[in-house]
Amino acid sequence: MTKILKGNAVIGQSGGPTGVINQSLVGVIEEVAKHQCFQKLLGAVHGVRGIINENFIDLDNVPQEQLQAVANTPSAALGSTRDKPDQDYCNNIFEVFKKNDVRYFFYIGGNDSASTANIVNDLAKQANYDLKVFHIPKTIDNDLLVTDHCPGYGSAAAFVAQAVMGDNFDNLALPGIKIDVVMGRHAGFLTAAAKLAQQRPDDGPHLIYIPEAPVSMEQFTQDVVDTYERLGRCLVVVSEGICDTDHTPWAVKMVEEAETDSHGNVQLSGSGALGDFLVAQVKKKLPKARLRADTFGYLQRSFPGIVSAVDAAEARQCGRAAASAAAGDGTDGSIAMKRLGNGDKYAIETFVTPLDSVAVKTKSLPAEYINKAGNNITDAFIEYVKPLVGKLPQVGFLR
Amino acid sequence: MTKILKGNAVIGQSGGPTGVINQSLVGVIEEVAKHQCFQKLLGAVHGVRGIINENFIDLDNVPQEQLQAVANTPSAALGSTRDKPDQDYCNNIFEVFKKNDVRYFFYIGGNDSASTANIVNDLAKQANYDLKVFHIPKTIDNDLLVTDHCPGYGSAAAFVAQAVMGDNFDNLALPGIKIDVVMGRHAGFLTAAAKLAQQRPDDGPHLIYIPEAPVSMEQFTQDVVDTYERLGRCLVVVSEGICDTDHTPWAVKMVEEAETDSHGNVQLSGSGALGDFLVAQVKKKLPKARLRADTFGYLQRSFPGIVSAVDAAEARQCGRAAASAAAGDGTDGSIAMKRLGNGDKYAIETFVTPLDSVAVKTKSLPAEYINKAGNNITDAFIEYVKPLVGKLPQVGFLR
Repeated sequence: MTKILKGNAVIGQSGGPTGVINQSLVGVIEEVAKHQCFQKLLGAVHGVRGIINENFIDLDNVPQEQLQAVANTPSAALGSTRDKPDQDYCNNIFEVFKKNDVRYFFYIGGNDSASTANIVNDLAKQANYDLKVFHIPKTIDNDLLVTDHCPGYGSAAAFVAQAVMGDNFDNLALPGIKIDVVMGRHAGFLTAAAKLAQQRPDDGPHLIYIPEAPVSMEQFTQDVVDTYERLGRCLVVVSEGICDTDHTPWAVKMVEEAETDSHGNVQLSGSGALGDFLVAQVKKKLPKARLRADTFGYLQRSFPGIVSAVDAAEARQCGRAAASAAAGDGTDGSIAMKRLGNGDKYAIETFVTPLDSVAVKTKSLPAEYINKAGNNITDAFIEYVKPLVGKLPQVGFLR
Repeated sequence: MTKILKGNAVIGQSGGPTGVINQSLVGVIEEVAKHQCFQKLLGAVHGVRGIINENFIDLDNVPQEQLQAVANTPSAALGSTRDKPDQDYCNNIFEVFKKNDVRYFFYIGGNDSASTANIVNDLAKQANYDLKVFHIPKTIDNDLLVTDHCPGYGSAAAFVAQAVMGDNFDNLALPGIKIDVVMGRHAGFLTAAAKLAQQRPDDGPHLIYIPEAPVSMEQFTQDVVDTYERLGRCLVVVSEGICDTDHTPWAVKMVEEAETDSHGNVQLSGSGALGDFLVAQVKKKLPKARLRADTFGYLQRSFPGIVSAVDAAEARQCGRAAASAAAGDGTDGSIAMKRLGNGDKYAIETFVTPLDSVAVKTKSLPAEYINKAGNNITDAFIEYVKPLVGKLPQVGFLR
């Protein structure tokens, strides 16, 4: 039997908010309370930054009712950080751990957080300091390796699907060309979820562009014109990372184009710039059409009330699995999910994967989920994403 | 006893979508089915445009299940229009009515729709043609006269409140300055609803700017700086119609400023332009702060799943009231709501107000709802708006 490692535990949250990152936090808190090996459970305020500043809050005696309310609250209750620790920064983290007899470290975040966890874990090993390090996945981008999908994605996908579903009704009532810009600089998973909004064959979204399927501006505008001529309207959803055939993002190219544009009336950066740029390109071909863009922005990642029940439960489960693994024989790793069935038989189980299998690198939307023309999403993706999002509002039509 | 007027009825939907405009439509359909005076009920496809093109759909035999699904669907199931009929256009409407033996006209929309209804009503009177004309209020702007509030507002207000609540958690986790732009060119009701998002005294929104309270750029940026220095973050919500002390909208002034700006890097129009302009102004005073803007866009008016139950029920009730008034002694008018109580005793009753009392003009946010500094909303407004929005998601904090 393994020797029981006794000591304090630290938990932190990192990166962009999601609707369920607090579910994972509460999962860890609940499971930690069940095991004697954990002495104090310390919450690092603003992630690694809270660790190096020794800014901790005590998580041992939070009433259950408050914990449940926190779990249901979007964003990171401990505060988050954009810091991406290098080796020196990780050294500082490790020094704080030694000083405070920290023997367990739980870090909720994306691939950068897995890297941080991995480096700190290596430092402890090199120093022969007993430390158990677990990463708990979290990202609306859904771009982590190994795991079937990431906690946080299902809820953001539900928001995007509902937003685009509503926008299709808007576009049906007042026809025109509408471009919606969804988060995702490198991976198209979140944008692809817009496909769930489609109710009938001619309903929007009519076109979906993701970073994995580069598109020339000629092709993009022609696709829009074709749909507009066929249906009298066109609802387009694009990732922030939509890119040209040379893989340069259009958000970068538009800046270059603006610099050579004597009118200078394209904003170089800003919240709506990409959408407005794409609108301007389409307008060249369809000067009389009613054109408009919206950029969903932060609403996608922290909207209270639009949370996938499956996502919330899985995020909680991943938190519990991390604490449970740490209390058992596990020494380090990232919690991952394996899908056991689909449709009505959807289920997952968690497992532990090495930290370095999740660190640094990311996943792209698989080719089987992208149509041949590169401007839409396949039914295979619907099968993948549907159980993660859950039931969408039921809607009806008169026309 | 009044002679019963027998004939066909036409119903149309106009202007920007809301979450509950279809509730009013279904309310009319349900009530019309109960009265023998109505022969065919015709739905005008895309409002007045559908009337002059005689593009109607039969609404007499829609199954109840489908009706309920339509009622729960945002936007206008019959299609909407931006057409604002002049006298000639209204003449054409009247000609179509005569040709099709239309004796009842229900028009769901804002003050422009009330004007159209009023002109058509006058034409019928002048021609001694028996026609009953009822306007059913609808607008997320909540700016119609006479009625306590407008169907559609409560649901949009719920969306804004939830979005800003989520953004406060986002801003708390990753502190910075965030500016959210809410619909409302002239009336601040929708923006003011952001106040519902505030959970604790130091939570956002910290500043709220509406068209009714003009603000100089010096004052605006100073307010933001003051909050940022006090709390290390600042969440600001502004109406599209935020304006300078001379009452010129900042969205107009920024275009003038851009034209004299040799850098030319402010976009003159577009989905995110105002937010980005305001961010740029704050950046001059706080160059190192994390700054970002989001513009909520169409999501505010047609998001399925974020519907106030009270708003939905009242919209349905207004539709029923219109058909009921038309089947009875009523000849014309706009349906309005009177508030009978507040808080737990909140209730409304509908009444009929003359068409010209609602046509053309609009309402502003009353002065008692705006704080003295003109940069926030009072508790009196909370009392006004809370019953219209209903319960917001319960949230919790650890810090």
